[in-house]
Amino acid sequence: MKASELGEFGLIELLAEIVAKSRGEALLVDIGDDAAAWRTEAAIQLATTDALIQDVHFTLSTITWRELGWKALAVNLSDIAAMGGVPKYALVSLGLPGDTEVEHVTQLYDGMVELARRYDVAIAGGNIAVAPLVVLSLAVTGSAPSDVLTRSAAAPGDQIAVTGYLGASGAGLAMLKKGLQFDEETTTRLREAHLKPQPRIVEGQILARTGVRAAIDLSDGLVSDLAKLCKASGVGAEIRAERIPIHPLVSAAFEQDCLNLALSGGEDYELLFTGRVEVMDRVKGLMPCPLSVIGEIVNEEPGRVRLLDEQGKEIGVEREGWEHFTPRNDDELSKPSY
Amino acid sequence: MKASELGEFGLIELLAEIVAKSRGEALLVDIGDDAAAWRTEAAIQLATTDALIQDVHFTLSTITWRELGWKALAVNLSDIAAMGGVPKYALVSLGLPGDTEVEHVTQLYDGMVELARRYDVAIAGGNIAVAPLVVLSLAVTGSAPSDVLTRSAAAPGDQIAVTGYLGASGAGLAMLKKGLQFDEETTTRLREAHLKPQPRIVEGQILARTGVRAAIDLSDGLVSDLAKLCKASGVGAEIRAERIPIHPLVSAAFEQDCLNLALSGGEDYELLFTGRVEVMDRVKGLMPCPLSVIGEIVNEEPGRVRLLDEQGKEIGVEREGWEHFTPRNDDELSKPSY
Repeated sequence: MKASELGEFGLIELLAEIVAKSRGEALLVDIGDDAAAWRTEAAIQLATTDALIQDVHFTLSTITWRELGWKALAVNLSDIAAMGGVPKYALVSLGLPGDTEVEHVTQLYDGMVELARRYDVAIAGGNIAVAPLVVLSLAVTGSAPSDVLTRSAAAPGDQIAVTGYLGASGAGLAMLKKGLQFDEETTTRLREAHLKPQPRIVEGQILARTGVRAAIDLSDGLVSDLAKLCKASGVGAEIRAERIPIHPLVSAAFEQDCLNLALSGGEDYELLFTGRVEVMDRVKGLMPCPLSVIGEIVNEEPGRVRLLDEQGKEIGVEREGWEHFTPRNDDELSKPSY
Repeated sequence: MKASELGEFGLIELLAEIVAKSRGEALLVDIGDDAAAWRTEAAIQLATTDALIQDVHFTLSTITWRELGWKALAVNLSDIAAMGGVPKYALVSLGLPGDTEVEHVTQLYDGMVELARRYDVAIAGGNIAVAPLVVLSLAVTGSAPSDVLTRSAAAPGDQIAVTGYLGASGAGLAMLKKGLQFDEETTTRLREAHLKPQPRIVEGQILARTGVRAAIDLSDGLVSDLAKLCKASGVGAEIRAERIPIHPLVSAAFEQDCLNLALSGGEDYELLFTGRVEVMDRVKGLMPCPLSVIGEIVNEEPGRVRLLDEQGKEIGVEREGWEHFTPRNDDELSKPSY
């Protein structure tokens, strides 16, 4: 069987079974969540890894080296954020063609360091090798002062909420790929949304402190990532189309596709989380960013996500987010995964 | 300037300056050593990363998928061993072509898990993405119960010692590349030395407990790695050709090249360490593997390594081990780096 036939998530399930043999008891959270977590005597340690591969996750014709460095770290920090953790150390494993300009490599690191300093993250080490194309694999460790946010803690009756606005990253990707022309502000902000995402570090920590227990970061797309959270929790979800916080610039620039971009565009790196009404009320008063309650966790087939219109009628979802190794996505730039 | 003009080690020095801006005080050991180390309230945590890239570090025509999994973890564990640490958790970032056989991916993980179980390492998480070629980037964390072994702790008067025998991995690579024919035992053992290296985990921990302070694992080659240790310690080294523990099968099979293979073949993943005579005497009684004292740390230009013959006359070293991005190595399979 080819990996492309099994699909990325099938592959992950398969591999999770294999690595289960290697795991001890102290590991609190492992494969299938955003980061691995374990307890030392002092604090819960977190670790995550994510790679950006040239012509799979990015193309050098649209991203600057500085943005590439930023993004490679941002997608990893977002995983720590989705655990409610404090990122601490990053390790960088870099593959580069021999004819890469040194200036470009330093710009890459400048971009990483810019973001690292913002969240007091130390780039603690790494590895460099020659490679036929640019491969940037980062591992980030961190700690969680209180309980961690997991994908498996959602319960029926929980409200479902997301931070910020959705669709801008997918819109930015579409703009860059198709060479679409917009006004300067739209162009700049869609580009930044896709190439320089902002991990929700502070917000994740607030969620963990305020009693939220279930969260995931939106890398593959709202519907896809919500389905993953639901599957891990053994529940289903109902979300309301009219409550999806579509980014205003996306609504304006992509009138037809804006809902789909918000549902399935991916790489917004916002946090999706669930909690009881009273927890959500506390969260609303504390979050430094926009927050939208978009639906409810229900007793349903695990992983089933239903999108409803204002009348409560189910709407089909056109595309369920990015998955690596599936043939339908072969012509697209992709996003980092699990 | 091209990366190939600056060279890998020049590039690392350059990047170390950039990331220095991102570092805090708690980091004990950072870029330029085998692993990053930091202190939590409880214990010293270690983390390292190393990648294997198809057609750079391996070719699928000679390595099995199971061996590839083993080796990818082994080279990372070797870095933890070189710190005297206990490896704990591994994160796997995997890039794979879509047409990779699923069976091969499971074999890859089987190989990793086989080694992981041997040292009680948990594969704690990871990431998979589609890629035009196989990219295996691992990060391993661990802890050190006592002081860590660093590259910067060697002092003039220290004896220099290595574990095990050298040259078998380089000989295995030459055999596989050139299709050389040997007897069955030689073929099997040279192949294993190159494709299934044994990290010196237990030995590293013994060194740390016994008062050794300076160590490095032999990935690029004895002369190259000793030069790195010397440079980090601000010292030089004199080693004796007749004391180099050339692997007996290499002496037999590569009569002409055996010394060069032992000095510069690389990827033996033995530990090179230094210590005062009394420390070495204690170490000799405790090590579960062969040990050879090969020379002495001297007051010299930092990083200068002199190879002497039995009369004390300097011998030129033909090739100083692997460095990524240098043109002279473009036609060779390479080894993981720093």
